This record gives sequence, structure tokens and C-alpha cells, in this order.
Amino acid sequence: MSASEIRELLKLIDRPEIISFAGGIPDPDFFPTAAIARAYEKVFQSNTGAGGALQYTISEGYGPLREWIAGYMARKGVRAGMDEILVTSGSQQALEFIGKLLIGPGDLVAVTKPTYLGALQAFSPYEPTYVSIAMDEDGPVLAELEEALAAKPKFLYLVPDFQNPNGTTVSLERRHAILEMCTAHGVPVVEDAAYAELRYEGEFLPSLAGIDAARNGGSPTQVIHCGSFSKTMVPALRVGWVAAPKAAVERMVLMKQAADLHVSTINQIVMHDIVGSIFDSHVKRLRGAYKERRDAMLQALADFAPEGVTWTRPQGGMFVWIELPEGMCGVTLLERAIREVNVAFVPGAAFFADRSGRNTIRLSFSATPPERIREGIRRLSTLVRDALPVAA
Amino acid sequence: MSASEIRELLKLIDRPEIISFAGGIPDPDFFPTAAIARAYEKVFQSNTGAGGALQYTISEGYGPLREWIAGYMARKGVRAGMDEILVTSGSQQALEFIGKLLIGPGDLVAVTKPTYLGALQAFSPYEPTYVSIAMDEDGPVLAELEEALAAKPKFLYLVPDFQNPNGTTVSLERRHAILEMCTAHGVPVVEDAAYAELRYEGEFLPSLAGIDAARNGGSPTQVIHCGSFSKTMVPALRVGWVAAPKAAVERMVLMKQAADLHVSTINQIVMHDIVGSIFDSHVKRLRGAYKERRDAMLQALADFAPEGVTWTRPQGGMFVWIELPEGMCGVTLLERAIREVNVAFVPGAAFFADRSGRNTIRLSFSATPPERIREGIRRLSTLVRDALPVAA
Repeated sequence: MSASEIRELLKLIDRPEIISFAGGIPDPDFFPTAAIARAYEKVFQSNTGAGGALQYTISEGYGPLREWIAGYMARKGVRAGMDEILVTSGSQQALEFIGKLLIGPGDLVAVTKPTYLGALQAFSPYEPTYVSIAMDEDGPVLAELEEALAAKPKFLYLVPDFQNPNGTTVSLERRHAILEMCTAHGVPVVEDAAYAELRYEGEFLPSLAGIDAARNGGSPTQVIHCGSFSKTMVPALRVGWVAAPKAAVERMVLMKQAADLHVSTINQIVMHDIVGSIFDSHVKRLRGAYKERRDAMLQALADFAPEGVTWTRPQGGMFVWIELPEGMCGVTLLERAIREVNVAFVPGAAFFADRSGRNTIRLSFSATPPERIREGIRRLSTLVRDALPVAA
Repeated sequence: MSASEIRELLKLIDRPEIISFAGGIPDPDFFPTAAIARAYEKVFQSNTGAGGALQYTISEGYGPLREWIAGYMARKGVRAGMDEILVTSGSQQALEFIGKLLIGPGDLVAVTKPTYLGALQAFSPYEPTYVSIAMDEDGPVLAELEEALAAKPKFLYLVPDFQNPNGTTVSLERRHAILEMCTAHGVPVVEDAAYAELRYEGEFLPSLAGIDAARNGGSPTQVIHCGSFSKTMVPALRVGWVAAPKAAVERMVLMKQAADLHVSTINQIVMHDIVGSIFDSHVKRLRGAYKERRDAMLQALADFAPEGVTWTRPQGGMFVWIELPEGMCGVTLLERAIREVNVAFVPGAAFFADRSGRNTIRLSFSATPPERIREGIRRLSTLVRDALPVAA
């Protein structure tokens, strides 16, 4: 399966007959469209004129937005100064810069099994060798992590909350243990917090950056934290950030300048406007809406899934992770699902650096209304049941 | 002088007492602000809703914008299909991708002397060895180009129109000769056409991509063409493009996906709207406005510049290139100019891959009204005259 898999699959979503669980994308029906429209309008009605919003700006990012991000991080227990935050074109660009900053050909990079495909795509051009760590329901298995860290990887990449793709959340105890082990081995942690705000049950857990900061008088030393507004606000403005020690941010600012100068000025101003006014209320609304969809998917799986199929029960995020009966292939199932029952998803193997996980698939519930989720799971379950004897 | 020179200098522009000839930036007073405001407004008033404009999109870029670019390229004699065009975050990102695509550590890259600093910043992370080709008033000196090409560089990078930094335009005859030589040696040409529309006198010359296409039945085979809306429309939307043979674009699309997924969806839609309605009329207006400033700078230099100072006479673009008397240093002059006469510019040495050009400076006339240009040149001339005995 090629690196452009997700991209090719995203194209399927536009076919109306397809029930797509493929893209890990927010539902546009939940976008804060009115607030965004008003924010763009305000830019052009401003007394100082729109000139500054349409001009080049500094590579670090729009000052007031970085200040907002610093305040947001502080609420999470992380003290990050203005010079420890870089605004990036989504958190994808932060991952790309981290790859460029830290990986040389043949260097080890530790990832979980499975891990976020976009991170592999960002890191792989820098030619790392991956060491893949198995997960249980509380996160990376510590014995495997210890073994991986002993091999001195350049960093550990982790999505601690409602991981893309498998929905797992790293437990508080496990977070402390991971940080302790990484600190002991001197291995930085790259924390991808793209989904952290989308929790539908249970208590919010401190980020790895927050735990690290609490141990170090407020500022993280071991953790590079990547944040994004793509899941909480909208993806199309391409605004994310990376918070890291000053020396790393300084180097990434130069990368940003060489890569594309800066994130769209007007989009940064608009993002600052909307997060300043509606961040908390909007995220609260999203939690309610996406919870309903998660619940619909879990209920449909309970009602329809055939024997031998297991799934995760995510506390948030956008994904349920399915393990098909041993011997069944996610790629083959996708081909049949699209052709025979008009259902799409992402085969799980794409999320394994070691190309295992052949019998896994990722289902996203975020962009599909509850009734269609139920119908899609019903169709898919029928297909899996039908495929079972063939695979056995 | 560090790689962050231009960035640091851009920060000076905000100090009102400084007359800045530093940034190669458009004047916000000339931005098509009303058209842009209306275009954003239309996105939110559309019958189909703004959801699509705020959602993720494909990495290749917004279809209608790529179609407009294809039509624009066709007007310039270049037949580029949809799959031969990638929308990038300004042409800076196109340069970055070209570096990633073509340069390995130690590979030769041919550039002119001087060349665009941003291109050096985009290429240098991939660790090329530069071979620098001297220029005369018609472009790169052919004897030096021949020698450079014989060493088999990965590509030749060229800004054929009103080059940043020295304002030189490659003559028609020289364009043909360069293409012939590059074709004979099998060396691709990277054509940076950022300023091509801003011609204030003389006839528009065909792009290298256009000449190449005419020789090859309409499609270029030897030229990778980088375009930008930053100078013709506005920089802040971060929309540019690269037109290249399909195989190269396919690889750059994967780079785009790994780097930041795609250019801001809404910004691409807005850019498509405004170029569709005002491109020709707006560019015509810009030509008039910037010509006045170029003329003011050339007149002021003729009136005030001391003996021993020479300068280029650009037919377009944003830059006049100054050669100071031998032995005088552009960096030292900048430090004194900022401190003593509140004038800023960019020392020329930054634009030389071989770090020559110590006695050169780049003056941008684009962002300064004619009277302030005259005053700035007067002050700078006084300072140079004052510095002359010291340097002699």
C-alpha cells in the first residue's frame, strides 16, 4: 500500500453513495462558520486597514496568537515563553520540522505499534529506522519501551490522547513512567496532542509536556509538544504550533523561513480572533456532538459485529480500531467494502512502521451522522461475516 | 552574516523613523483589499455553505485555481496539464521541494552571482555545493555557464526577470542560448518567475518554460517553473505554484502531503476568485505605481550618488543593485546607515553563494513612496561620501 493511501481514500468521500469511515476529518456541519466569517470581516473593517493582515509577517508567527497559545499551554501546566512557540502550517508541519531537526539517515526513531501514518510520512524522508513498540490499553508496553530506549533512539513519538489510529489513551500512571524512562535515557518525547481536547468521558489527563514541566519548575525540557486547531476549530486555515525548548524553536524558525516563510498572516489573525472568543464553548459543543457518534458506532458494533471481531472503546477523539479475525486482510476487505457495500475505511497496516497489523482497520466516526454510522457498521459487519469462511 | 538576515531586517521596517529599502516586499497600499474582502465574504454567503472552504482538501491544490494557473501558463505559451501543476505555500515552498527532490549532500547546484537569498536558504539544508556563475547585463555569462554545466550540476537556478537581488533581466538571445546549453548537458533549469509580471518598460520576454515548450510541442521538458501571487496580488495568503513534468509533480505532491497536507483551502478559493476577476487590471495598476518608484530611485541616484558608486537600471521588479567603491563593505555601511541616517537595505554579500560581493548592496524601491525614496537615497549618498576616505 502506497504512501498516498490516505490521500487517495479522501477522494472517495465525495461520492455520495459511500459511507466513509476513512478520513480522520472533522464534520464541516460543526465548524464555527459564523465566527470565522465575522473574523475575516473584522480584518477588513479594522481602523488600521487590512494591509498588515495581507502582508508578509515574521516566521515565528503572529504575536497575539503565540501569546494565546502560551496562555493555553499555561492552563495545561506548561510554561512556554513566546520564543518557545512556533506557529506551523498545521501540526503536520511541526512533525516535518522535527524530522528535519532530529533525524539523520539510519537514526532510530521509536514509535508505537500502530502509530499515526502522517507522522511516518513526515519522518520517513529523513530515512530513520523505526523501532515499533507494542501497545496495551494503557499505552506503550513499558518492557518494550525500555528495550527501545536502550537502543538510544533520537526521540519517542507518541499521541497520548485517543490515538490516531487506535483510539487508545495513555494512562496517567503510564505517562509518568514513560517520562521517567525517557528522562533516564535522555530521549526526547514528541507529544502529538491533536485530539487532546476531544474527550467524551473520564477525566482530562495532564499532557506529557505538563508532567515534564511540573518536574522542572514549569518549563518542559524533555518534551516537544505539537498542537493543532484543525480538530478543535477548522483544518482549512492550516494553523498549528510546536512548543519546545528555545534552542529547538530557534532552529525550527529558520526551517520555517526556508520552507514557506510563514503561516498565512490573515489566517493567523482570524484564528486568534476565534480562539479568543469561542474556543471553550465551541470545543464543549464538539464534545457533545462527537460523543453521540462514538456512542452510535460502539452500539452498532455491539449489535452487528460478528464473532471474532474486537474493537477499542475510545474515551475521545475520532477513531475506533477494529481487529478482524486472524488471517483476514484489511486491504482485501476495503476493496470488497467499496465495491460491494459502499463503505470505506483505512486498512490498519498503513499505521505500522513494521508493516504488521494486516488484520486491523481504522474506523473514523467523526464525519458521519449517527444513523449512517449504524447503517455503515451493519453493512460492514455483513461483509465481514460473509468473508469469514473464505478467510478461515 | 547569518541566514536570518532578511528576517531580522524585516523587523526594522516597523520602526517609523527608518526609511527601509530592505524588504523585497510589495506596498500594502497597493493591495487589492476590496476584492479580497469581497471574495472572503462570498465564501461565507455561498449557497453550498462554507464547509468545503474550511475543510481539508487534496494536496495538489484547489482544482479551479490549478485550472486558472494552467490557462495563465498557456497564455505564456506553456501547455501544463492539471497533473503538471502543484499549488504551494508561496514559491518559497516550491524551491524547498525542488531542493528536497533534486539535491543530495555534495551535489552541485548552479546559481548566478548574485542569486536570490531565499533560494539559497531553501536549497542549503540539502547540502549542495554551489557553483556560482558571473552575470553581465544580459544574464549569466555563457562561458562560465558552459564550464558550470560541464561539471553536471543537478540543476541551474535562475530568476530571468528583474532578478532579486540585482534587477537584471536575461535577454531573449541569452535565454535561447541558456536553454540550448542546458538541454545539451541534460541539466534542468529551475525558473523563478516571481517578478515576471512587473515590467515597467520594454517588451515582455517569453519565459524559459515557454521557450522550452515551443521547442517540444507545447510542454516543457527541461524547465521547472515556479510562480507566485505574492508580488502580483498579496503575500499573506501564501499561494504560489510549481509547474513541472508530471513525474516531478507527482513526487512533490507527496512532499506537500508530508510537509503540511495542503495550502489553506479558503485562501486558494479566495485567490482563485480574485485572479479570475482582477488579475490583468490589478497588475497593470501595479506596473504604473512601481514604475514611479523605480524612476524616483534612479533619478535620486543620478542626482546624489557620489563618484565611484554604480547601479543597475532594472526594467521591472523591485530592486536596484548598487556597487560601492572597491574596498567598501556593505555590512559596515548598513550598520552605520541604520545608526546614523535611519536608512536600511540588505548588504549584497548575502546573495552570493561564494560570499563574494562584499562591496554590493540591494535597494528595494517597492514599499516606499517616491519622496521618501529620494530622501533615503540622499541620506545614504551622504553617508557613502562620508565613508569614502575611511574606506580608501
